[in-house]
Amino acid sequence: MTSENRGNCLAWAARDKSGFLSPYTFNRRAVGKDDEKLGKATYPLVPGHEIVGTVQEVGSEVQHFKVGDHVGVGAYVNSCRDCEYCNDELEIHCSNGVVSTINGLDVDGTMTKGGYSSFIVVHKRYCYKIPEGYPLSLAAPLLCAGITVYTPMIRHKMNQPGKSLGVVGLGGTGHLAVKFGKAFGLNVTVFSTSMTKKEEALDLLGADNFVVSSDDEQMKALEKSLDFIIDTASGVHPFDPYMSILKTAGTLVMVGAPSEIKLNPLNLILGMKTLTGTATGGTKQTQEMLDFCGAHKIYPEVEVIPIQYANEAFERLITKDVKYRFVIDIENSLG
Amino acid sequence: MTSENRGNCLAWAARDKSGFLSPYTFNRRAVGKDDEKLGKATYPLVPGHEIVGTVQEVGSEVQHFKVGDHVGVGAYVNSCRDCEYCNDELEIHCSNGVVSTINGLDVDGTMTKGGYSSFIVVHKRYCYKIPEGYPLSLAAPLLCAGITVYTPMIRHKMNQPGKSLGVVGLGGTGHLAVKFGKAFGLNVTVFSTSMTKKEEALDLLGADNFVVSSDDEQMKALEKSLDFIIDTASGVHPFDPYMSILKTAGTLVMVGAPSEIKLNPLNLILGMKTLTGTATGGTKQTQEMLDFCGAHKIYPEVEVIPIQYANEAFERLITKDVKYRFVIDIENSLG
Repeated sequence: MTSENRGNCLAWAARDKSGFLSPYTFNRRAVGKDDEKLGKATYPLVPGHEIVGTVQEVGSEVQHFKVGDHVGVGAYVNSCRDCEYCNDELEIHCSNGVVSTINGLDVDGTMTKGGYSSFIVVHKRYCYKIPEGYPLSLAAPLLCAGITVYTPMIRHKMNQPGKSLGVVGLGGTGHLAVKFGKAFGLNVTVFSTSMTKKEEALDLLGADNFVVSSDDEQMKALEKSLDFIIDTASGVHPFDPYMSILKTAGTLVMVGAPSEIKLNPLNLILGMKTLTGTATGGTKQTQEMLDFCGAHKIYPEVEVIPIQYANEAFERLITKDVKYRFVIDIENSLG
Repeated sequence: MTSENRGNCLAWAARDKSGFLSPYTFNRRAVGKDDEKLGKATYPLVPGHEIVGTVQEVGSEVQHFKVGDHVGVGAYVNSCRDCEYCNDELEIHCSNGVVSTINGLDVDGTMTKGGYSSFIVVHKRYCYKIPEGYPLSLAAPLLCAGITVYTPMIRHKMNQPGKSLGVVGLGGTGHLAVKFGKAFGLNVTVFSTSMTKKEEALDLLGADNFVVSSDDEQMKALEKSLDFIIDTASGVHPFDPYMSILKTAGTLVMVGAPSEIKLNPLNLILGMKTLTGTATGGTKQTQEMLDFCGAHKIYPEVEVIPIQYANEAFERLITKDVKYRFVIDIENSLG
């Protein structure tokens, strides 16, 4: 394969703030010595940061991957590889600024472009091996949603069987939190604004308990009962009821980002409770998470769509009409 | 000594919501088999929960203390001694409800009454040994303010030399946070609303750095620089600037209790930062803290006053005119 072959990369892109996507062609940089190139079978959710595909070409210093390997790329594609966080393989927290998979500054001076495209060129450090036999379309959501809930669960020792986990919101990240929770042997309670998700939460995802968060009586009954809550809700919502549900020294971790948090400090002070946040995860833990999912047969629930359906899918995301992640089949629908 | 001798306990008490204190006499319960009685030399700040004195009488099953010992009592005087938290010596978090030193339900069915009184009867578990030679008047503030800042520092491993600590507010708790920080070998930055405290923060308390929190430029210069912040401010104040000053994975612990916390969740999510709270500490750690203060000659800064000055002292507290804790000399001013 010569460099001419990769001169033009096909993609779908938003042209303005409306976010409406349409076909687009651009030039990707050539494969450098540590780079590899993924192509054809990329599967993103938001345009381009949960990407899965097959290696098409590798740089001269890439040993760990070979052409034909199934690989993934997550929310970032570069970092300084020299600071304390990079040295700890927490590249997402790079002191010199991590480079996002979309809209970041690429090494060739262009803006990074994500997975709604026919191929992507990424440094080997930010590529992950998809476990043998793991369906590619199911692997995609693990690369951001999966690692985003896995990271705080490991950090806060929520991989110890018998502990109790609450999951607020049952979308792309929330449903994976339930699956990880059950795989870790936890007692899992799902909090939702709507009763409609009860059956799926219990039967499909395996949660132990389902609570409608507006039901004060059910909420009160859970007072001081949970070790940990993963809050995936992105709309403004009350925090005090969830803090009350935590045991002494319990932790609520936010992965959703409402516009503001408001709470009563006494809900932190009495019971030394903790409110914390998390943003995706480092490369080492991402690979561990993928391997864990392979070993424990943890599979995200997805709806595979063609790229032409992307705009309609986005409309459905807004109305929460998705179970639980859209995955775009670029290989069979682009170009 | 017969039970008649302790029939009447002299005290100062608030009679109504005004909080105005005046002399008062009441009956304390007799000393039970596990109880001991402190008297004469009690030193409180808020009426009655930082108490130091000399043992006057002990119950038949008290071995650890003897008449004449210097002892202290903190913010609580009873708990179930049977739940998981009591078993971990975290009695303040007792599942069945800790009994506060003031206004709690005592074992004889009366309301607990604190240290603004000639003696107090307390179960041995909730009494602490004041280290040999440690001035009694200086020990009092350790029993609530001291343990309140010591507990989260140990919990969050802030006793490791070289780490960086921020202390927001320089009152009774804040000044002890600075002293503990320096004793642990930390680099300590004090945040205050007023420049007037700079000299004392640096020269008297030994802080390394002093920042006026309203100075955006100084605040900005500290971005991502601190491991840990102890926030003792009790008025409503912004949290986002302090979250920005924390390093990745840094923690802000609240010991003050403003009426509300408001912050931007992105300040928790990006950098996986933590907001937590703490309320005094357990009996085991309280004794450790007292011993640590004895060994490292950590002495609170206090102003000793007679009980007759209590109401005026309270006025001065409101205007923050205290360096840094009032201690009431009950022995020499009551009755």
